[in-house]
Amino acid sequence: TRAGYPLPTRPQDTRLVCIIAQVNLTLPVMAVNSWLAEPIKGLLLDITGVLYESGEGFGTAIPGSVEAVKRLRETGIPVRFVTNETCATRAELIKKLHHHSFSVSEGDVFSPVPAVISLLKERGLVPHLLVHPAIECEFSGLVAGNPTCVVMGDADEAFSFANMNVAFRALKAMEDPKLFALGFGKYYKHKGQLQLDVGAFATALEFACDIKSEIVGKPSPLFFDAALSDIGITAKEAVMIGDDIVSDVGGAQKCGIRGVLVRTGKYTRSCENHPTVTPHFIANNLSEAVDLIIEAQSKNIHQV
Amino acid sequence: TRAGYPLPTRPQDTRLVCIIAQVNLTLPVMAVNSWLAEPIKGLLLDITGVLYESGEGFGTAIPGSVEAVKRLRETGIPVRFVTNETCATRAELIKKLHHHSFSVSEGDVFSPVPAVISLLKERGLVPHLLVHPAIECEFSGLVAGNPTCVVMGDADEAFSFANMNVAFRALKAMEDPKLFALGFGKYYKHKGQLQLDVGAFATALEFACDIKSEIVGKPSPLFFDAALSDIGITAKEAVMIGDDIVSDVGGAQKCGIRGVLVRTGKYTRSCENHPTVTPHFIANNLSEAVDLIIEAQSKNIHQV
Repeated sequence: TRAGYPLPTRPQDTRLVCIIAQVNLTLPVMAVNSWLAEPIKGLLLDITGVLYESGEGFGTAIPGSVEAVKRLRETGIPVRFVTNETCATRAELIKKLHHHSFSVSEGDVFSPVPAVISLLKERGLVPHLLVHPAIECEFSGLVAGNPTCVVMGDADEAFSFANMNVAFRALKAMEDPKLFALGFGKYYKHKGQLQLDVGAFATALEFACDIKSEIVGKPSPLFFDAALSDIGITAKEAVMIGDDIVSDVGGAQKCGIRGVLVRTGKYTRSCENHPTVTPHFIANNLSEAVDLIIEAQSKNIHQV
Repeated sequence: TRAGYPLPTRPQDTRLVCIIAQVNLTLPVMAVNSWLAEPIKGLLLDITGVLYESGEGFGTAIPGSVEAVKRLRETGIPVRFVTNETCATRAELIKKLHHHSFSVSEGDVFSPVPAVISLLKERGLVPHLLVHPAIECEFSGLVAGNPTCVVMGDADEAFSFANMNVAFRALKAMEDPKLFALGFGKYYKHKGQLQLDVGAFATALEFACDIKSEIVGKPSPLFFDAALSDIGITAKEAVMIGDDIVSDVGGAQKCGIRGVLVRTGKYTRSCENHPTVTPHFIANNLSEAVDLIIEAQSKNIHQV
């Protein structure tokens, strides 16, 4: 009953039943109208859990998602992909998406790795890496000499006790310890099971070292802003669609972007009663959200 | 210079030099007087990092600590040992202390394991364990059926990515997730190196599950209170001596117990400038603190 509407238990409460029935019928329609009322000039899409479910090899495309992206391309609504995925290089990610026939090019993908690399170069920082072995190569040339910061991604199995301690001791040895977290997710779905994400392990190091990490990726406003500027639209003109109630939906909403949650990927029923984040809309999947957006946009165009 | 007094850089500031010299000479004496002024009717001692340094096998006794405990026994000042050590059973801990010739009996040791076991029995909870393999046997008979809580101790190498995920999924599967942390230390010294403690990993699960853990052990006031009641004294009559600025010194002070930090164990120079905790006194080691206490007590007795 946590996720549903409470129903009266005593049948004699007919007046109450009517009120509740009315609320049930009216509220969702109002909500749909309101989030689609303003023009949508661009979409930001999360990748894992929205386009495909991760798993062995290339994982599985989520039914309807390939066609949904295709429909967006056809209608000409600009799309950028904002991901916190740091278990594969961008090239490997694109390869995976192309395997599933998604129409995505490398330039459309915003991921934390290129963002943190520019940042390290800009500030002249030497990273100690606690990242997935698959992406270590992207940092070649930057790791030299005594580290002046720690960069943490979703390291997966590399979040071993030994590696956590090495990163911890690296931070303790720095005069001004700096921790960069590539995203700050709590958990995600991997091979059918929930597993802890970088946010949990970054929180452990924050606590142990009395520091706060700097987030590169969602939900950092800088990250959403970069994708919006690339399209050339404002936050109010955009919609973000993702399966992470905090990083995707909450993060976007904090920037003034409408946030839509999908019931795929890491979604669980409890997301619908999140204590601090209420999505603008909850769609069963990307396909449903895209259909509603395209329909509303075509009406908006006719009205103009 | 973080830990020292700033000195004037211009030699012409003679007046300033005099003032600082005076402060340097006077302040520590005043501090010593004030924390020893009230009678001390009992001592609470941390074990690891105060009595001995952990390491291969039985570790190494800290010079002067065996004799310091002996002197306390001779003068009749009651002593209890409050430890968050959960890498060994209480029996093994006592064996280790006896190996170093410490005069300690099992009844004098307050550790989180017996405390959490009574608590689980009292509330009828079934634990999922994320503890050191050496202490799993202490929970035999309690682990049966679907877990209704997670109990985390200093699991050391058992803080693997796989074990963290199993504990995380156990919490996510509970209707009312409960997490008990046996202590909440940030880190400790092990085989000459700092290593992450249970508090860091508990913080990771708290973040991922949106819950707060219940601490059994230091710095929980209930834990200090149990040791005080056993001696039969009030918080104001006690002194806690430990190497953990937060759990030992800060935890004791929050209960109204005087807190003394020792420069052994996990102590680092930065502890002397901790943002929230200022010890009543910082001693080089247990022996020095005990000498001062015994001397002050003998004067107090003569005054009465």
